[in-house]
Amino acid sequence: MTVDRIETDLIGPLPIPANALYGVHTRRAELNFDVSGMRLSDYPELIQSMAMVKKAAALTNHDLGLLSTEKCNAICDACDDLIELKEIETNFPVDMMQGGAGTSTNMNVNEVLTNIALLKLGSPLGDYATLHPNDDVNLSQSTNDVYPTALRLTILRACDALLSSQVELRDAFRAKANQFGDTLKVGRTQLQDAVPMTAGQEFEAFAELIEEDIDQVNAVCRLLKEVNLGGSAIGTSINVPAGFSAVACGHLSNISGLQVIPARNLIEATSDTGGFVSFSGVLKRIAVKLTKICNDLRLLSSGPRGGFGEIKLPPVQAGSSIMPGKVNPVIPEMMNQIGFQVIGNDLTVTMAASAGQLQLNAMEPVIVLNILQSMRMLTRGMEIFRVRCVDGIEVDVDRCKALLDQSLVLATPLAKLIGYSKAAALSKKALAENRALREVVEEEGVLGQAELEQVFDGAASFARASFNRSVL
Amino acid sequence: MTVDRIETDLIGPLPIPANALYGVHTRRAELNFDVSGMRLSDYPELIQSMAMVKKAAALTNHDLGLLSTEKCNAICDACDDLIELKEIETNFPVDMMQGGAGTSTNMNVNEVLTNIALLKLGSPLGDYATLHPNDDVNLSQSTNDVYPTALRLTILRACDALLSSQVELRDAFRAKANQFGDTLKVGRTQLQDAVPMTAGQEFEAFAELIEEDIDQVNAVCRLLKEVNLGGSAIGTSINVPAGFSAVACGHLSNISGLQVIPARNLIEATSDTGGFVSFSGVLKRIAVKLTKICNDLRLLSSGPRGGFGEIKLPPVQAGSSIMPGKVNPVIPEMMNQIGFQVIGNDLTVTMAASAGQLQLNAMEPVIVLNILQSMRMLTRGMEIFRVRCVDGIEVDVDRCKALLDQSLVLATPLAKLIGYSKAAALSKKALAENRALREVVEEEGVLGQAELEQVFDGAASFARASFNRSVL
Amino acid sequence: MTVDRIETDLIGPLPIPANALYGVHTRRAELNFDVSGMRLSDYPELIQSMAMVKKAAALTNHDLGLLSTEKCNAICDACDDLIELKEIETNFPVDMMQGGAGTSTNMNVNEVLTNIALLKLGSPLGDYATLHPNDDVNLSQSTNDVYPTALRLTILRACDALLSSQVELRDAFRAKANQFGDTLKVGRTQLQDAVPMTAGQEFEAFAELIEEDIDQVNAVCRLLKEVNLGGSAIGTSINVPAGFSAVACGHLSNISGLQVIPARNLIEATSDTGGFVSFSGVLKRIAVKLTKICNDLRLLSSGPRGGFGEIKLPPVQAGSSIMPGKVNPVIPEMMNQIGFQVIGNDLTVTMAASAGQLQLNAMEPVIVLNILQSMRMLTRGMEIFRVRCVDGIEVDVDRCKALLDQSLVLATPLAKLIGYSKAAALSKKALAENRALREVVEEEGVLGQAELEQVFDGAASFARASFNRSVL
Amino acid sequence: MTVDRIETDLIGPLPIPANALYGVHTRRAELNFDVSGMRLSDYPELIQSMAMVKKAAALTNHDLGLLSTEKCNAICDACDDLIELKEIETNFPVDMMQGGAGTSTNMNVNEVLTNIALLKLGSPLGDYATLHPNDDVNLSQSTNDVYPTALRLTILRACDALLSSQVELRDAFRAKANQFGDTLKVGRTQLQDAVPMTAGQEFEAFAELIEEDIDQVNAVCRLLKEVNLGGSAIGTSINVPAGFSAVACGHLSNISGLQVIPARNLIEATSDTGGFVSFSGVLKRIAVKLTKICNDLRLLSSGPRGGFGEIKLPPVQAGSSIMPGKVNPVIPEMMNQIGFQVIGNDLTVTMAASAGQLQLNAMEPVIVLNILQSMRMLTRGMEIFRVRCVDGIEVDVDRCKALLDQSLVLATPLAKLIGYSKAAALSKKALAENRALREVVEEEGVLGQAELEQVFDGAASFARASFNRSVL
Repeated sequence: MTVDRIETDLIGPLPIPANALYGVHTRRAELNFDVSGMRLSDYPELIQSMAMVKKAAALTNHDLGLLSTEKCNAICDACDDLIELKEIETNFPVDMMQGGAGTSTNMNVNEVLTNIALLKLGSPLGDYATLHPNDDVNLSQSTNDVYPTALRLTILRACDALLSSQVELRDAFRAKANQFGDTLKVGRTQLQDAVPMTAGQEFEAFAELIEEDIDQVNAVCRLLKEVNLGGSAIGTSINVPAGFSAVACGHLSNISGLQVIPARNLIEATSDTGGFVSFSGVLKRIAVKLTKICNDLRLLSSGPRGGFGEIKLPPVQAGSSIMPGKVNPVIPEMMNQIGFQVIGNDLTVTMAASAGQLQLNAMEPVIVLNILQSMRMLTRGMEIFRVRCVDGIEVDVDRCKALLDQSLVLATPLAKLIGYSKAAALSKKALAENRALREVVEEEGVLGQAELEQVFDGAASFARASFNRSVL
Repeated sequence: MTVDRIETDLIGPLPIPANALYGVHTRRAELNFDVSGMRLSDYPELIQSMAMVKKAAALTNHDLGLLSTEKCNAICDACDDLIELKEIETNFPVDMMQGGAGTSTNMNVNEVLTNIALLKLGSPLGDYATLHPNDDVNLSQSTNDVYPTALRLTILRACDALLSSQVELRDAFRAKANQFGDTLKVGRTQLQDAVPMTAGQEFEAFAELIEEDIDQVNAVCRLLKEVNLGGSAIGTSINVPAGFSAVACGHLSNISGLQVIPARNLIEATSDTGGFVSFSGVLKRIAVKLTKICNDLRLLSSGPRGGFGEIKLPPVQAGSSIMPGKVNPVIPEMMNQIGFQVIGNDLTVTMAASAGQLQLNAMEPVIVLNILQSMRMLTRGMEIFRVRCVDGIEVDVDRCKALLDQSLVLATPLAKLIGYSKAAALSKKALAENRALREVVEEEGVLGQAELEQVFDGAASFARASFNRSVL
Repeated sequence: MTVDRIETDLIGPLPIPANALYGVHTRRAELNFDVSGMRLSDYPELIQSMAMVKKAAALTNHDLGLLSTEKCNAICDACDDLIELKEIETNFPVDMMQGGAGTSTNMNVNEVLTNIALLKLGSPLGDYATLHPNDDVNLSQSTNDVYPTALRLTILRACDALLSSQVELRDAFRAKANQFGDTLKVGRTQLQDAVPMTAGQEFEAFAELIEEDIDQVNAVCRLLKEVNLGGSAIGTSINVPAGFSAVACGHLSNISGLQVIPARNLIEATSDTGGFVSFSGVLKRIAVKLTKICNDLRLLSSGPRGGFGEIKLPPVQAGSSIMPGKVNPVIPEMMNQIGFQVIGNDLTVTMAASAGQLQLNAMEPVIVLNILQSMRMLTRGMEIFRVRCVDGIEVDVDRCKALLDQSLVLATPLAKLIGYSKAAALSKKALAENRALREVVEEEGVLGQAELEQVFDGAASFARASFNRSVL
Repeated sequence: MTVDRIETDLIGPLPIPANALYGVHTRRAELNFDVSGMRLSDYPELIQSMAMVKKAAALTNHDLGLLSTEKCNAICDACDDLIELKEIETNFPVDMMQGGAGTSTNMNVNEVLTNIALLKLGSPLGDYATLHPNDDVNLSQSTNDVYPTALRLTILRACDALLSSQVELRDAFRAKANQFGDTLKVGRTQLQDAVPMTAGQEFEAFAELIEEDIDQVNAVCRLLKEVNLGGSAIGTSINVPAGFSAVACGHLSNISGLQVIPARNLIEATSDTGGFVSFSGVLKRIAVKLTKICNDLRLLSSGPRGGFGEIKLPPVQAGSSIMPGKVNPVIPEMMNQIGFQVIGNDLTVTMAASAGQLQLNAMEPVIVLNILQSMRMLTRGMEIFRVRCVDGIEVDVDRCKALLDQSLVLATPLAKLIGYSKAAALSKKALAENRALREVVEEEGVLGQAELEQVFDGAASFARASFNRSVL
């Protein structure tokens, strides 16, 4: 059996598992924050981003003459290992719900990079005299600049998948809009029959809801591209050589493929979490829209016989353990619950962001945990929603027609001809006597035959929206 | 024209309108916090409670030999004026959204009481050498004990009206449950047809929802009866004579008719807002239940022809400026919005409660503002909801029967006889072929005639709930 | 005494006060929604916007040949009256917390405009045969397009004052930053002494926080300039002549001075509340930033002798009813409470926005109520905050210097010379022995004299931030 | 290699891994809801509760003559396996964020129990003709009664650990209160020096805060002991034999050791989530209190030299990657973040609870996920907080004394002797001239020597709280 090695910090000596690539700071943090069961290793995208930042810093330190080529190469190689997701599973045991403003995350990364590099240099684990986690790997850096930078990078990188899910979902709704384009149906406001429309218009509106959110994601990403790298502990760039920030942002842009730039005011940028608040706000907005869409789909598919029944969702599993043959809208229900989670997570982000004090916000770990969780659930959720629900939705043309025909929704164009008050009286009469509006209007003799046909055979024309960009 | 009088505080001299019953501290606060347009005078119930506390304190100071009979009588008479809602309209101009942890509210009350008392004593306004707002009216007190005590008292007193609204709404739903008792209908889960029930059962469940909330209001009120009166600035009872707390609580109980008692730990009680958090939480729970009920009513009344249409809400106004004859569920919509407001207000309360620091929570003004607003809207809202909506709801018996008859909800009792899998297959077949389940079952020959009748003529018996306390 | 006039709707006849400019629909709504005590007349900016929309619609109807010049002129004159805030106080009694998706607001405006116009035309109140609230004033419109359009317009117009408050507050902080530029002090992270900075940098960061929010307000306003005017009931433009939307937006832009344009998809735009969610999210973000700033100011001014005591807020009122001479940070406390209110209001907006169903969101009234309340409180609050607090802040130079001199914050530049581990050990030793770090370092002999001075006389240089745009 | 077995549901046939104890319904759900990465197997406490409910149901079915002894024994043995946490790791792959109102959880349990029982009976996996997941294991049950029952049971069982953490934390603060009892210090309101108190009083207040929350947890648990077991699909007890509910609750009480009883109204109880709202509200309240306590601890330990510095938290790890020797309050920061998470989770619960429709709330999965997460974090968090922070807190007696001595907090007892206004003037003078209050008072000659000593040597007596139950 292997023997633990001993490492020491300002608290004292501590045994480290012999083959662990992390060191004493990581081990302390693992013991201090064993609280949520969610560990850094569960969010490898964050570790990747930290490694990208570390690599950019090492290259910059080398450029500025502060780090030897040998050390720089070893550190960069180690960074590449993490970027390629090597060594992550067992070496990042720190809880995501950690105190310390990300210091433990930074030190976990510093230690693992150091030990990987030491192995590459032919030195034993823990030989920090050869390469030091703080003095070399963390050179010219502070947790307070590298950690927020890596958080922004992580979110930006995760946006690719989020945007893809959005685009594909939008397209799926648009395809349905085209498929359902001709089907006339009752449009409803306040759950009451209103005026005619087409099922295609209804689904095109879903597509548009998502389209606008895509714009929002793209817009908010710009905010996150301003980073405080080079600001060091509080943004005053203490212990950081002149020019570091610009050079490091250049390297980081190359490494990540994202155009990050130094923030206008590094002091403000070090404590500010406004970008996260805005980003989480966009996630909340997406959740609000998806909630609305899923509520509508569940309502329109209610029944199969005792509800609206205008559309059918594809059955994906049996709906009940006791009621045979029951099929439920389980995928929209899943999305609704994701929506509630994202909105709750946004509140957590908001409160954490409000809790910044003086030159730092120590609550960033819970901010990033909630944003990344929300992004994951939305991204995966929208994909499942599309594949297992939206793509298979069918409209019940007969049901739509039947409901439309028996409705009173043509009272509105009628009013254009005979006035609001008279139309209201006839509509009320038809409802009270359980008769068709056309029949009542004919009986009253208020319209000539041509007008009668114009109103009561005109549902299709009344549904023809005059909006600008319509494929319908 | 009357000439302003001048009063002076530690900031300096300040003109006060000649006939104003308030003084310099009130005027400063009026100028400092002119932000929301909501003033103390808009919440006379809070001023009343402050006056009750002040009266209890004066009587106690007199009992303990600290206040002359003459002063005590004058102060008590002044308190009675405020309790009777005299002089409130123009003399309490301080904004509800005030900094200072309620000091401005306390000083506004102290000053008005002093000046009313001075007039009663035959002295001019502002003659604080005769009677002093701090040294006499505020004797043995601090804002930090009288203000939280008055907040609790205000809420407790407002609970009478809240509970009345709840009780009457519960009874209204129960009356409807009795009225609709016989009407068989489709019970639904996840918006899909499930099993038979009666409309009476559905409305009795609404009554029960409210009944449970009544229990919660009563339970949480107990928490609020513990007050920190006598704790003075931070709960150490500095400048307060021994025995004050118990005697003052006795007087306050007599004056208010509520049995208030001293908190177990006055220091904790001075900064703690847990009782407000719990109370606001109960208001939130009420909002959640009302939201659910109103959503259900809007859904069940959807149509009139293109929706569920099982119930009719009484029309209370025209529904549209363009669609003649449209009637909308405007009263439930109003309640839904009140629900959202109450839930948002609860978040404000939660954040404010979290913001207490050391020996005080300076954010109590926004806490009480939100709780009182929520109570008002819920109390008035439930009354309007009952009178203008619930009392007039009618069930559409024919529609309920038609939806039930065409549904597949008897697949569940069928499964008891032929097993879940087989029943599921037959149900699926009936749906696919757009036929009645009974017809498909007969065709398949899986049931004898007696069993067939037991299942398909048994909706009424299957709806008969076995629950403990049923009036249905 | 004047006799009520009688008006009739589909519910039946109803008495209207003889001189009231409103009609039956308004009176129904007044009775139905008497719940919050907040009435339309308390938000005249909303009525103004409705009048602008109505004027634009009248001009458009006239342009398109649907409305006579005489009627158009009368309606436009009536609109101008409301835009000039005439007749508002007593004629808009409908509660802001109303069901009906704004129909009652629209009808209240329709009725008042009609009756003002009737008077201008020499006709009696209620003579709707001459001019009709629905058929003339509401011609080619639905609540569902004019109301959301007016909400957007109201918010956009209120942004002027909001932005002014922000700009002035930013400038006030920037002026303080310049004033405090030279004062060296302890920078702190996680409430622990960190590294040197200047008071000017600290206040410049506050300015920058607000600057970024100004950008956000400007950005989100663009979203609100897309309106669904001309979409009518559900966005299909039923009963609306071709071309109405574009012409009406042109008129509305002229009238309001804001460049509003038709939304891309009028059906989606009719039910979508995404713009409100985004806007409220920006208000929330402003609240988060102000919360952080006010927390910092209260912390930095804590004391006067038992706290941080680095700055002094201007005293604006006596702080306590029992503790003489106490001065409290009441203005920042007010702002903190506004922050909690705005965040709570944002939740209300979020929930209401999630509750849209099918072709409409009936919960818009509570959305606009909360947004306008939040805007008011933020706008007025920031102005008070600036004038009564920020402008008068002073820095205690001696206190800042004393705290800096006795601190250990120069361990960081020390580490650059002797390494992290050794510097940590010396720092720990100095703390434990309650000595100055310089003394311990000298004693250990780890630095030469030049280096010693470079580190321990270098606070000013270490505070010199390398950030891009610094005035400090 | 083993060959998959094929199972079939109403969607069609599906391959199941040969050795999997689950069946087709589980596999469908696994594929449908692969969204959060959090699986049923991560919450074994929920599976245990489901197994307890299933065992109670089997025993009841046997008592009532519906289930053979052999089947009953096999099912009960299988339940015992799950209760003992056997077979859980790989057989419960369904995501916690699932649609379907818990049906997939119920079916996963039904299927695993069936297959375990089949193995015990000597039958092959999937031999549902011998023992059927729905017809036997789920006999007399619906997801809609067993799932909410199991959720309540899970929460109740988890309360043991939560309460233990609370009790131990309360005791830890009480021990500190006793330890610090004698130390006089400045009491503060609104972050400003107020009046004297002891450090013991401050920590006893923390203990009391937690004590009151313990009461709340105990109180809310009573709500959760009412279950809807026996209500079946919608509470009408369809397919459930008479007497089932009472007998099953008896068995379940025996099995679980908790006294569960049937709800008063099973229909209401089936859709109602009020108990969850109330429970989550109590968790939120705990979070609010812990937030306040941790904020205070971070504030009181601020420094070490540039802040309040009255207490020292035990160092548990290095505080910075760049600032050597820095020690941060990382454990309270962790608790603060847990607090934000719990408050966010409570919002998710609130929204999900509001989303119930008609006879069911389909959003229960996200409710239970959030409650269980919050309970875990609070339970573990409070334990870590106690062991790694509270137990090791030390008070800096000298610092407390120094701050008290230089403060103006004795102006309050001074006012009792010379009146509020005069005391205010002297206090203001002392502050402005940077002198001791005693010196200024002596100079002014407003007090005799005895009075002078009574006030200025009396801090200890002024700190002596008069509250009822004081150990200090």
